[in-house]
Amino acid sequence: MATAIAPELESKGRAARAAAPSLARTPAEVKDHALLAIADALEAQADRIAEANERDLQAGREGGLSSAVMGRLVLDARRITNVANGVRAIAALPDPVGQDYDSYTRPDGLVITRRRVPLGVIGVIYESRPNVTVDIAALCFKAGDPCILRGGKEAVHTNAVLAAIIRDAIASAGGPPEAVQFIEDTDRALVLQMLGMSDYIDLIVPRGSASLVSFVGENATMPAITGGIGVCHTYVDATAETETAVAVTTNAKVARFSVCNALDTVLVHAQAAPHVLPLLAGTLGEAGVEMRCDRRSASLLASQPGANVVAATEDDFGQEFLDLICSVKVVDSMDEALEHIAHYGSGHSEAIITEDAGAAERFLDEVDAAAVFVNASTGFNDGFEFGLGAELAISTNKFHARGPMGLRELTSYKWVVRGKGHTRP
Amino acid sequence: MATAIAPELESKGRAARAAAPSLARTPAEVKDHALLAIADALEAQADRIAEANERDLQAGREGGLSSAVMGRLVLDARRITNVANGVRAIAALPDPVGQDYDSYTRPDGLVITRRRVPLGVIGVIYESRPNVTVDIAALCFKAGDPCILRGGKEAVHTNAVLAAIIRDAIASAGGPPEAVQFIEDTDRALVLQMLGMSDYIDLIVPRGSASLVSFVGENATMPAITGGIGVCHTYVDATAETETAVAVTTNAKVARFSVCNALDTVLVHAQAAPHVLPLLAGTLGEAGVEMRCDRRSASLLASQPGANVVAATEDDFGQEFLDLICSVKVVDSMDEALEHIAHYGSGHSEAIITEDAGAAERFLDEVDAAAVFVNASTGFNDGFEFGLGAELAISTNKFHARGPMGLRELTSYKWVVRGKGHTRP
Repeated sequence: MATAIAPELESKGRAARAAAPSLARTPAEVKDHALLAIADALEAQADRIAEANERDLQAGREGGLSSAVMGRLVLDARRITNVANGVRAIAALPDPVGQDYDSYTRPDGLVITRRRVPLGVIGVIYESRPNVTVDIAALCFKAGDPCILRGGKEAVHTNAVLAAIIRDAIASAGGPPEAVQFIEDTDRALVLQMLGMSDYIDLIVPRGSASLVSFVGENATMPAITGGIGVCHTYVDATAETETAVAVTTNAKVARFSVCNALDTVLVHAQAAPHVLPLLAGTLGEAGVEMRCDRRSASLLASQPGANVVAATEDDFGQEFLDLICSVKVVDSMDEALEHIAHYGSGHSEAIITEDAGAAERFLDEVDAAAVFVNASTGFNDGFEFGLGAELAISTNKFHARGPMGLRELTSYKWVVRGKGHTRP
Repeated sequence: MATAIAPELESKGRAARAAAPSLARTPAEVKDHALLAIADALEAQADRIAEANERDLQAGREGGLSSAVMGRLVLDARRITNVANGVRAIAALPDPVGQDYDSYTRPDGLVITRRRVPLGVIGVIYESRPNVTVDIAALCFKAGDPCILRGGKEAVHTNAVLAAIIRDAIASAGGPPEAVQFIEDTDRALVLQMLGMSDYIDLIVPRGSASLVSFVGENATMPAITGGIGVCHTYVDATAETETAVAVTTNAKVARFSVCNALDTVLVHAQAAPHVLPLLAGTLGEAGVEMRCDRRSASLLASQPGANVVAATEDDFGQEFLDLICSVKVVDSMDEALEHIAHYGSGHSEAIITEDAGAAERFLDEVDAAAVFVNASTGFNDGFEFGLGAELAISTNKFHARGPMGLRELTSYKWVVRGKGHTRP
């Protein structure tokens, strides 16, 4: 990578790298104290944040941002309280750094243990939501990893104020403020430059659109988490309980339709389709969901009152809608469902609804995805729901971490070996 | 990567990728049966292997290979038995694939478990030793990972016969022979092509010289394990027991001087130096080790009979010798030792010899290396010694795996979630 690196990136990269040993050795109490100080400062300085946020919102209105983007940009007092409580929840989690595990004493008395250590400097490139600045800074800080944050230009005033508050609060609690670096220069060229900074950044995490994720995957010179794209299926098996099938499938689509773990495609076994699809069309129709149906499912719903059905095209399968839309297909066998998922899925979240234990186990074994579900919504694929407390991202890689990345997934380990003069023969 | 890919690479890459689902689902019994069949076939076909090996040795003699390289190339009946026994040991290890761990039942009854799954297709680029072909094929096969092996041209006849024997034995045991692919084309251009095959290869592992490792690190488009370079220190603390210091330090240098975990530099606290260094010079001198000494250690050994002392230059610190050579430096404090290791070490294996428990814990905490040792030889940093049964490589990365990579480190995991109609509010 021969690209010149902007001075701000270079100096903040250097500062993050330099902060790594000191953050790695910061005791859990000091880290938690700093996190609580961050939470309190965010609430205490809600006006300052709102003022900066208003500048971003004003610029957004002038720039003609969509109402969806504008909605994500808002950081009002209620959201600040949520963000602050999220930081408090991270403070309450056990510190992963220094945890010993897999200890093993050899017959000759040599004691071998793995000990969790921080992963290193984490670079995060993200788009509009300013709460991400706080979530990620808090998670990385607790895991002992300095972070370099590069947010979207739409939220730059809000983000810069949040980063300043975070750094001040860390310093006030006796922690290393240089562990959180925020890049203020919004020049797009900096993204590529950041991807070349393998001397300063150990892991890069893109959070945002599919195009950002693939740009990072193609250009990063350091390990990258290139997840977040979820083309999620729910397969309703021949033996599915109708009520469960309708409730879980509807929930997977409707509860949070704009996130990566939301349902995109329903596959229904031909035996279940005649009783499941009409009821499903009712609940989905009521929630305003457009069903893009293959020929067989469309014909089952032809005279269904309230159903919002259009004919599916090939493009509707394998697509992440992030909207109140799903595609629907009738299949003749579980084999056909598994083949469809293998072909069209993105390895994120896949579910089966079934009363057949053998079918459930086969689905869990054979579907190659970060999370596979039996009789539950794909919407549960989330760090908080999985008991990790919070998450940096949802990985669809198999290397290092898969699925939600919480504190433990933000660490590495070292081997700690204690002898009494042990030598190898 | 716009480089054209050689037809052999393309077709074998495709075959390995296609074998992944079938190998992932091959039951443990079939895999172990296949491994035992490989071991038996290697011994039964020792003559065929010896014949191929003789062709490589003949070519090596004609090509003027060094005696060290020629020595590594030899695969005689005794070595074949060792290799076969290594495969039997891998067969005897528990199958990592399908192991469930970290199971957690939520208050609402949702059961969340992590399940180990294969990592994917592993590409390995290695140099002269033909036994590596068998070791790696067996380890990857057991972990459920198809492998694509690219050995050095010096051993190509031996490697090709070994790969053929392995594939036949797998097929005879009812396993998928396409899970082991060996590239016979020895054109150097194929290495770079292989590094561009991210569609077919999920992880690339170089085993060989520092220049191979760094070439792979710089050019791989998929995750790479870029370890194996060990600049290893042993720090003899002020409180070290003299006998332990001399025995462990000597052992770390002498037992296997040509491998990455061998000692390169001895750092001795000024208080320990006067009693430790003369005895150490005796044992190292007897083993034929050249000591490259800084001024202070040299002056302590000036009139030492039997010592093999030369003056160190700056280049002797931070160097991996892989030979009967070490550098020696007297330090005034543990701080100085830690700084020296942080500056010159490669993050591989570092040891302290001390009777002071506080110093030991500080060393374990502060030294940033794959394995840190108290009162034990760095030579223990090895998959077999650490209880992993075998190893693919020793990683000095922090991402995914650090230190010896055994079966578990060759797997990923998926989240398996079982509900009873669970939906998210």
